[in-house]
Amino acid sequence: MSFSLSTDTMAAIATAPGEGAIAVVRLSGPETYALADRLFRCPSPPPSGRATGTFVHGQVCEPATGEVIDDALLLVFKAPRSYTGEDAVEIHCHGGSQSARRILDALLHAGARPAGPGEFTKRAFLNNKLDLTQAEAVLDLIHARSERAARLAAAQLENALGIRIRALYDALLAASADTEALLDFPDDELPQGVTSEIKDRVDVLSRDLRALLGTWSEGHVLRDGARIVIAGAPNVGKSTLLNRLAGRERAIVSPHAGTTRDIIEESVTLHGYPFHLSDTAGLREAPCEIEQEGIRRTHLALAEADLCLYLVDASQPLSEAETAFIRSHDPQRILVLANKTDLGNRLFSKEVADFQILGLSAQQDPSMEPLIDAMLAKLHLTSGSGHQEGVAVSRRHKDSLSIALEEITQTSILLSDGREPSFLPAATHLRSATEQVGFIFGKDCTDEMLNTLFSRFCVGK
Amino acid sequence: MSFSLSTDTMAAIATAPGEGAIAVVRLSGPETYALADRLFRCPSPPPSGRATGTFVHGQVCEPATGEVIDDALLLVFKAPRSYTGEDAVEIHCHGGSQSARRILDALLHAGARPAGPGEFTKRAFLNNKLDLTQAEAVLDLIHARSERAARLAAAQLENALGIRIRALYDALLAASADTEALLDFPDDELPQGVTSEIKDRVDVLSRDLRALLGTWSEGHVLRDGARIVIAGAPNVGKSTLLNRLAGRERAIVSPHAGTTRDIIEESVTLHGYPFHLSDTAGLREAPCEIEQEGIRRTHLALAEADLCLYLVDASQPLSEAETAFIRSHDPQRILVLANKTDLGNRLFSKEVADFQILGLSAQQDPSMEPLIDAMLAKLHLTSGSGHQEGVAVSRRHKDSLSIALEEITQTSILLSDGREPSFLPAATHLRSATEQVGFIFGKDCTDEMLNTLFSRFCVGK
Repeated sequence: MSFSLSTDTMAAIATAPGEGAIAVVRLSGPETYALADRLFRCPSPPPSGRATGTFVHGQVCEPATGEVIDDALLLVFKAPRSYTGEDAVEIHCHGGSQSARRILDALLHAGARPAGPGEFTKRAFLNNKLDLTQAEAVLDLIHARSERAARLAAAQLENALGIRIRALYDALLAASADTEALLDFPDDELPQGVTSEIKDRVDVLSRDLRALLGTWSEGHVLRDGARIVIAGAPNVGKSTLLNRLAGRERAIVSPHAGTTRDIIEESVTLHGYPFHLSDTAGLREAPCEIEQEGIRRTHLALAEADLCLYLVDASQPLSEAETAFIRSHDPQRILVLANKTDLGNRLFSKEVADFQILGLSAQQDPSMEPLIDAMLAKLHLTSGSGHQEGVAVSRRHKDSLSIALEEITQTSILLSDGREPSFLPAATHLRSATEQVGFIFGKDCTDEMLNTLFSRFCVGK
Repeated sequence: MSFSLSTDTMAAIATAPGEGAIAVVRLSGPETYALADRLFRCPSPPPSGRATGTFVHGQVCEPATGEVIDDALLLVFKAPRSYTGEDAVEIHCHGGSQSARRILDALLHAGARPAGPGEFTKRAFLNNKLDLTQAEAVLDLIHARSERAARLAAAQLENALGIRIRALYDALLAASADTEALLDFPDDELPQGVTSEIKDRVDVLSRDLRALLGTWSEGHVLRDGARIVIAGAPNVGKSTLLNRLAGRERAIVSPHAGTTRDIIEESVTLHGYPFHLSDTAGLREAPCEIEQEGIRRTHLALAEADLCLYLVDASQPLSEAETAFIRSHDPQRILVLANKTDLGNRLFSKEVADFQILGLSAQQDPSMEPLIDAMLAKLHLTSGSGHQEGVAVSRRHKDSLSIALEEITQTSILLSDGREPSFLPAATHLRSATEQVGFIFGKDCTDEMLNTLFSRFCVGK
């Protein structure tokens, strides 16, 4: 498919709303300089006569009346040396709610159109100023909720992921071409070992795909935050644990069973990862109606959680209900916490031997670090601020990589066969894998894919 | 007094917090370029080697590790061609909560100090980049809550007020000098008419001062919003009126007397002026305890109000309490509204003949414009969007102008006397008036005056 370049000129406020010293209005498209010349009054030459990379102090005026809206700086970017690759200017005015809005209104009145979400970045992508992983990094950086998330986004913006994906794409493309070339040989003239050579290359690529998919957990948690649900019978200390992890008295704690009814949520950053903690109603049989609703919500929250912290009382034997609850879970997605170790410590039955059980006292332990380390390990996250590869895929990348991995696995099986009738389907699967990997950096994406992606941006970016 | 120029380099985030495409970190002071060269990696030359009025795309890095924090633009301003008049740069990075904060942290770590509120503008003032009325206009523009308020601030930033105040100051200074010169003449050698000539000039200046003081109401309402309290007996339609003015169902309306207890507040913009409307508890004798507290709060709100809208029932005779309430007010600060004209219309007694009374039906009238016009007139505001002079003084200006007017009035009285013993006190009063007017644009302000003024700014401005 091909992309036509824009013929209209769009404008938007690019800074966050609210009181600040500076606000920025940006303008991009073919009529940028004509509009800037009409609104911006400055020492000669006018904006259109200035060089890219220069800025000038002047005044933005209503074109009709000449009334000064604000003092402003005007930054000149000439195509292709701009963010979008088009002619562009940025008007820097005073912050607050009025100046930028009035300047935007004047630009729209003069003929610009309001930019949609992410439209500046979309044009930058269409004009090859950045690839799709970099465009996504812009979004990730703006939305980053922790320093670690910001660092991942910055590395992706510097193209750490894009370079790796392109290398993978090129190798897949070469393997595809070589597989297709097999079709040209009469079956008996096929050189010795050529299919197994291709198969070996495909298997190496398969390992690369798996390695990238392995970064999904980190990428997911850094972008979306890990959803942790604290569950357990009434009065095992769930709210006490939430408060310890939150570092403040977020939830009301009382010695009465059933104190917590609504799900109490708290966002914290642990080792640079954003966590969304949910403290839930205690799970028990036949409680009152309000509590029943609470328990229903607990089960809903559990279904969505990345990890369940399941509290039991270390000084009591496990109840049948507790054993059943634990055993109904994937051991990878539940961490059993034997709380109140200060009150006693019973051995656990063999029935839950497959599950990791950590003893602690949420009330007495001086530090929650052993628990946090265990949570990070369960979620396949690196503890400490140490090594960070700068590559961790997002859900969109993961979806494409997963499909590509399936396709390439089929290719490998077919190539093992080593006979001519397998070559065509092998080549088809490999083409499909290649296409999926191409989508990640934006190769041959459909308009619909791009629109979905850029609609998540804010206006002005 | 004299001001010493800063020897340290300060940094702050200059854009509003929150999600936006762009954030700006600014840096000003002697070490600006040394710091920028350490953090900013770009195609040669480094920031310090670039000309003022240019910007360059590059990367901000942690000086210690070289890790890229973000892609950024760097704007170069060399002293004195910057906002502060000092060497300065602006670093434009991606918006959101992380990038700008990390860049600021890196700058502080490298030796910059965090800027206090308004410190950039204070340095601009101390370096004669703008006068004090313009510095205040920057604040007004950022805080402007309506377009009309923004237009006033923009005009003041273009020095509409400063020029007028300086002209007044110069004329006062000349009159002071001429009055002091009278002291050099032996009493009998004073040329004919010289004191009355000075007195005439002083009286003209007195009229100028009064004219400026007359803009205070407009300046106050545009900057602070007009505080309007809606009061009246229970069930006269106060909440209905609030809802009409607010254009939405803000307050709960019921046929039961005493429905409103808390003061309900709503901010609206009427003809470009910000209004803070307060709907209060109905005033009546011997209500329940909760209502009594409501009535106490109503009286507190009334004491602070710029205007009281006092509702009475047009179909009923005024009660004694209502007559007493109205008569206890300054006719300039109360507008009596005879509501429910759809139900009847009684004549008002002579006892309230001094008070403006407007008939209306808050429930039935198609438009509230006649009421809004009456409110604007009471507050000495211009209705419509028409003429606007671009000058309207703030409380600080008004305070200085009021003192100056008192001083100048004394001068005029003393000069009328025309005899030598009056000349010295006349000159002293005139000097004092001159000094007060000088304070308005920043002449001879004390550090304390400046600190008070700039502490109202946001950090980063």
